[in-house]
Amino acid sequence: MIYLDNSATTQPFSEVLQTFQDASMQYFGNPSSLHSAGMNAEQLLTKARTATAKLFSIDPKEVVYTSGGTEGNNLAIKGTALEHVSRGRHLITSQVEHPSVLEAFEQLENAGFEVTYLPVDASGRVSPKEVQHSLRKDTTLVSIMHVNNEIGTVQPVEEIADILQHVPHTYFHVDHVQGVGKVSLDFAHPGIDLCTVSGHKVHAVKGTGFLYVRQGVSLSPLFHGGKQEQSLRSGTENVPGIAALAKALRMSLERSDELDRLEGLKRRLMFAFQEMPGAVVNTPDDASAPHIFNVAFPGVKPEVVIQSLAKKGIHVSTKSACASKLQQASPVLLALGRDVETATSAIRVSLCFDTTEEEIDQLLKALHECLPEFLEVMGAKNA
Amino acid sequence: MIYLDNSATTQPFSEVLQTFQDASMQYFGNPSSLHSAGMNAEQLLTKARTATAKLFSIDPKEVVYTSGGTEGNNLAIKGTALEHVSRGRHLITSQVEHPSVLEAFEQLENAGFEVTYLPVDASGRVSPKEVQHSLRKDTTLVSIMHVNNEIGTVQPVEEIADILQHVPHTYFHVDHVQGVGKVSLDFAHPGIDLCTVSGHKVHAVKGTGFLYVRQGVSLSPLFHGGKQEQSLRSGTENVPGIAALAKALRMSLERSDELDRLEGLKRRLMFAFQEMPGAVVNTPDDASAPHIFNVAFPGVKPEVVIQSLAKKGIHVSTKSACASKLQQASPVLLALGRDVETATSAIRVSLCFDTTEEEIDQLLKALHECLPEFLEVMGAKNA
Ligand SMILES: Cc1ncc(COP(=O)(O)O)c(C=O)c1O
Ligand SMILES: Cc1ncc(COP(=O)(O)O)c(C=O)c1O
Repeated sequence: MIYLDNSATTQPFSEVLQTFQDASMQYFGNPSSLHSAGMNAEQLLTKARTATAKLFSIDPKEVVYTSGGTEGNNLAIKGTALEHVSRGRHLITSQVEHPSVLEAFEQLENAGFEVTYLPVDASGRVSPKEVQHSLRKDTTLVSIMHVNNEIGTVQPVEEIADILQHVPHTYFHVDHVQGVGKVSLDFAHPGIDLCTVSGHKVHAVKGTGFLYVRQGVSLSPLFHGGKQEQSLRSGTENVPGIAALAKALRMSLERSDELDRLEGLKRRLMFAFQEMPGAVVNTPDDASAPHIFNVAFPGVKPEVVIQSLAKKGIHVSTKSACASKLQQASPVLLALGRDVETATSAIRVSLCFDTTEEEIDQLLKALHECLPEFLEVMGAKNA
Repeated sequence: MIYLDNSATTQPFSEVLQTFQDASMQYFGNPSSLHSAGMNAEQLLTKARTATAKLFSIDPKEVVYTSGGTEGNNLAIKGTALEHVSRGRHLITSQVEHPSVLEAFEQLENAGFEVTYLPVDASGRVSPKEVQHSLRKDTTLVSIMHVNNEIGTVQPVEEIADILQHVPHTYFHVDHVQGVGKVSLDFAHPGIDLCTVSGHKVHAVKGTGFLYVRQGVSLSPLFHGGKQEQSLRSGTENVPGIAALAKALRMSLERSDELDRLEGLKRRLMFAFQEMPGAVVNTPDDASAPHIFNVAFPGVKPEVVIQSLAKKGIHVSTKSACASKLQQASPVLLALGRDVETATSAIRVSLCFDTTEEEIDQLLKALHECLPEFLEVMGAKNA
């Protein structure tokens, strides 16, 4: 199997699974329990938290463990908006965010908040100036993703943070789910208040993640109860998952010297399709993540391409995984200004550290074999 | 190690960990992805959901996977209250619920809801009649736990359901976290609308659980996003965790013929302390779960007993794990009418299927060794 859908989810590293397994058997206690089984679990939790904080140069107290990116985004967005509602009801995000961000904002609109959805340029980029111009006295939160999950565009989040650092009543949340381990981000960059990480995108086990909450930022929790995670996320801690996450993050970040190689593979895909008639490359040439490549073949149904590749054991995707079963145009591509035909015919190829040059060769070969036929059928139909 | 803190958390069954491991490697795809890795994961998810639903004689569509009991309780309680706020703002629960229930209600009080906290009798039992008398036209939710996590009292949830089944505007939620696998409950019993299950209490992996949501019951989700779990709980599904949960539930329920043996062990503990001077048994004689035993030694610090037992490799707990680090009186024991001294000196012993007679013997021996000394020190102080 050639798995090129790593932005949907990754296979856990086997060392990470081993950590999960060992911790599940040997550190299964409840960290809140007073006996040694509890204390051992608590020590492992502290060790994992400290190690993770160190990887991102943040304080262990700033790590709030969650069940994944969707929870992190919902906690950050609803948590900030609701906690600071007395200061205002205006929120800012972009048109190209992940559904877990967009739908959280829609929910807040239903609850009486006003949301500005910023447009993007043809590369999918938000303009920091537009963020600045959209700020109001009653703006309590700006949420902009770091790396777009469909096309790989890197947003100028540091520049936006530079602006927002001078606006103390407005918090800044970054959805870093696709960025982590692939495009570095300084969490401690002044102006960044909240940052979402999901484990299953970086070879951790599923059901894990964390939300970075800068010290001093207050949030309204989604879960109330036993006051775990400094009362921001009650519930018995998934210590084995947290230990496995720490390991997966360390292993991913240790491989950052391989990012150039990934960038090279992405460039090969770019070159292969940039000149191809019938293909529209959606991933921008500059400032895009090294692991995501998006190309559309207007008029060709992406499901057909995906199935054709799948028969050869190659796994790619259409748009974001959670929307892939709805045969709709990608809102991200529409926001870029692509037409509906392009926006309904995109293929996403997403790499991981183990992706090889040979695998990309095989993908290109398979696409060159099947595409002319599809494009021809299409041409015939249009003729 | 003699682990007798199974109500805080359990060690996963090794077969369950194996399932998690295998699914993590072989079914790691995102169920939403269109290719075979995604489809295989989706099939496993469906298989696990169907198997779990069958265990509880419910419909697979009624299973909403969560990260655990705290999430399930928060989703059920806040989700129902917020979704049906146009019908009323009155809610009913009891004084002896788990913090994940009580704090969810407190949060709703802050948001303008009115909550009736029903008292309990000396056995910790809620009276169905009092539930009935507390009902109002604007009551949208009643939430009563099945088995109390501190003392093991079984609440008359079926009787309460029988009342509520005739009150269509009032939903009924049962926190079944301590009951599952130990005290059977018919989820499909008319009148029960929502039921919380947590994986780590039944030898599943941590970070897993499900909320039973009867067909036709609508809830406001805590997480918005990719519309997984029928839009009630967005987020990439933890398929390996869900498969492991199905296995753990099946294995637990298959061992129900061992419940009599557990009940016997609990009775031995009862008899040992019922006549002992200086001991107050808090677990009721009748209608209590087979795996939880609670006894107080008024005036003796429970931490001292716990540490003394821990030195002999025996792990028991004070009150509920998440409150164990706060040296406060147990609100549950106070609600029973116990005095503060009793309510601050309780020890909880909680069993699992693998608990042996020899382990209980050793616990009793160890307690008989250390207790007289503590009680004497105390007597001397009081003299
Ligand atoms: C950019 C982005 N944000 C958030 C998420 C949601 O994360 P999770 O799948 O862990 O819920 C995803 C992936 O699904 C994503 O790509
Ligand atoms: C009765 C009861 N409800 C809810 C919970 C919370 O479940 P979890 O630990 O899975 O968050 C627990 C245990 O902590 C419990 O004993």
